[in-house]
Amino acid sequence: MSSLPQISPVDEESRVAALTELDRKTKPRGSLGRLEVLAAQIAAIARSPAPDQLRAAIVVAAADHGIAAESVSAYPQEVTRQMLASFASGSAAISVLARAAGAELVVVDAGVIEPLEHPAIRSLRLGPGTANAALGPAMSRETAAEAIARGAALAAELTTAGASVVALGDMGIGNTTSASALACALLGGEAREMCGPGTGLDAGGVAHKAEIVARMLAANRPDPADPLGALAAVGGFEIGFLAGVALGAAAGGAVVVLDGFITGASALVAVRLDHELRGYLVASHRSPEPGHAPVLEALGLEPLLDLGLRLGEGSGAALALPLLAAARAILVEMATFEAAGVTDTGR
Amino acid sequence: MSSLPQISPVDEESRVAALTELDRKTKPRGSLGRLEVLAAQIAAIARSPAPDQLRAAIVVAAADHGIAAESVSAYPQEVTRQMLASFASGSAAISVLARAAGAELVVVDAGVIEPLEHPAIRSLRLGPGTANAALGPAMSRETAAEAIARGAALAAELTTAGASVVALGDMGIGNTTSASALACALLGGEAREMCGPGTGLDAGGVAHKAEIVARMLAANRPDPADPLGALAAVGGFEIGFLAGVALGAAAGGAVVVLDGFITGASALVAVRLDHELRGYLVASHRSPEPGHAPVLEALGLEPLLDLGLRLGEGSGAALALPLLAAARAILVEMATFEAAGVTDTGR
Repeated sequence: MSSLPQISPVDEESRVAALTELDRKTKPRGSLGRLEVLAAQIAAIARSPAPDQLRAAIVVAAADHGIAAESVSAYPQEVTRQMLASFASGSAAISVLARAAGAELVVVDAGVIEPLEHPAIRSLRLGPGTANAALGPAMSRETAAEAIARGAALAAELTTAGASVVALGDMGIGNTTSASALACALLGGEAREMCGPGTGLDAGGVAHKAEIVARMLAANRPDPADPLGALAAVGGFEIGFLAGVALGAAAGGAVVVLDGFITGASALVAVRLDHELRGYLVASHRSPEPGHAPVLEALGLEPLLDLGLRLGEGSGAALALPLLAAARAILVEMATFEAAGVTDTGR
Repeated sequence: MSSLPQISPVDEESRVAALTELDRKTKPRGSLGRLEVLAAQIAAIARSPAPDQLRAAIVVAAADHGIAAESVSAYPQEVTRQMLASFASGSAAISVLARAAGAELVVVDAGVIEPLEHPAIRSLRLGPGTANAALGPAMSRETAAEAIARGAALAAELTTAGASVVALGDMGIGNTTSASALACALLGGEAREMCGPGTGLDAGGVAHKAEIVARMLAANRPDPADPLGALAAVGGFEIGFLAGVALGAAAGGAVVVLDGFITGASALVAVRLDHELRGYLVASHRSPEPGHAPVLEALGLEPLLDLGLRLGEGSGAALALPLLAAARAILVEMATFEAAGVTDTGR
């Protein structure tokens, strides 16, 4: 992975300057709670205590998973491609939520089984779906590296074009199974603790899924100290691609907004490849998927929203974008006690 | 209170139709969690399973509290008027957050001590601050009724002009003390359980505040079955005014978005006056102020955000507005499985 983009540490001076500035605003100290912490993080990432208005792009990447052959999803595998078409048509949940948030939506085919030609789809395919990871590696180490490189290249293109926020979204029937296996591989948890209903399994389905995850781990024996190897062994094309998007976006100086469990697994791989990414990450929401909590804990992130979202596609990330815009606006547009002529007691 | 506006029950048929429609959208059933519940509530309030784009107005009402004479706040009383000026100037937190949310901001002087002339301030004064409720009633029963009537009239004006969402915001040095006393009066809790740091008291300050609340209750002995009497005894002009705004907005068919503890106390008074208001209420955020949880429980509301906000002004309500817009967009703009040609398994 000599080709990983270079991520600068976030600028702690700008964070401190932002916090100082927030304490001069006409409000009791800290009374905007986590919005103030978020504003200071945006300043640290932008390397300025007065960041420009944010421009957000949401990258939703779709790919198929060989593990779907093991009946781990409530939906048939063809739904991955159908949803990719729906993203491109502008009527999927993420299409609607991206518009509502005023964000650009970038739809990526990272490797669905059957390609789909559409002007709104970026074809950055790593192959026609991964192999069945219950039988051997999902992809080669070279393909895993290529997934990350392609994601990073797309993110570089977006940040060069002016995106200061890059949000991650995923689609792939079977990908909660891949994410659960990856979380087990990198965090060392038990399969049954990392598996949940995904898009709608019942209790029996979840138990079966945990057995499959255990088989994926047994078949591949991923090394927890080798994130790229773990990604290749039990991950997915879109998971690797989005890990690359996160790394590339941070290298380009953008805030990286995670969605739920799958993009959390992407971030876990990415942070293990470059720890500097950590300062650029914002967790948008807490997913009810049981593997999400340990992933967030490992990343040291506290989500902004807790609305019981379990759709994926970047839907939670899109819903959190207005909070980022509001946090920046508070930092840049609010008056200070002095300027407003308001009595400050320093509380 | 014969002049209370007439509130129709929300339309359960539209709620059910919206939920049915949401289950036809290209996503697993219920996978957008509380956003779906919110979308269905908006439909029930709008009396349509396909509500028009939302138009939001935020009403921030300021007034002074005689109880401030008892040293219950970290800030001097003159700050109420200074902040009213700041709201009007466009550089206060709520000014910034209203702009960020694309909402109209309506700034009301409901009775600061010294009036303030400004074209952006609606003067609907109930008097030059309330009386010290530790010594007797904060205001007369007639004034309390007038506060509600004026709030309801303003809300009627806003909904007639097209507002379909009305958010409440408050400002008043000493008003967490009034809200705590009102919550005790209507819910029957102990003063020390309903009192918190407000804008920045230390532990000693909070203990003193609880003593003052106990004195307010002892001096007035408000009847829990008489919300108007309780408001007159220990409430505030802006608290009564905002109760009226809530009632008037619901009567005009608008969603009513609460901010934190103070507007929660307003809603408690209002719901006790007309229980039909309940279906129109959305709790934007959970305040760290200890009295907020019992107020929300009494109202049967679960807040959308939990970001440690304790500013007031309607700041939490403003931050929640994009979630309402997103919920409506999901309901109206997303494709169904059938229209998108996506396989539905009914999960």
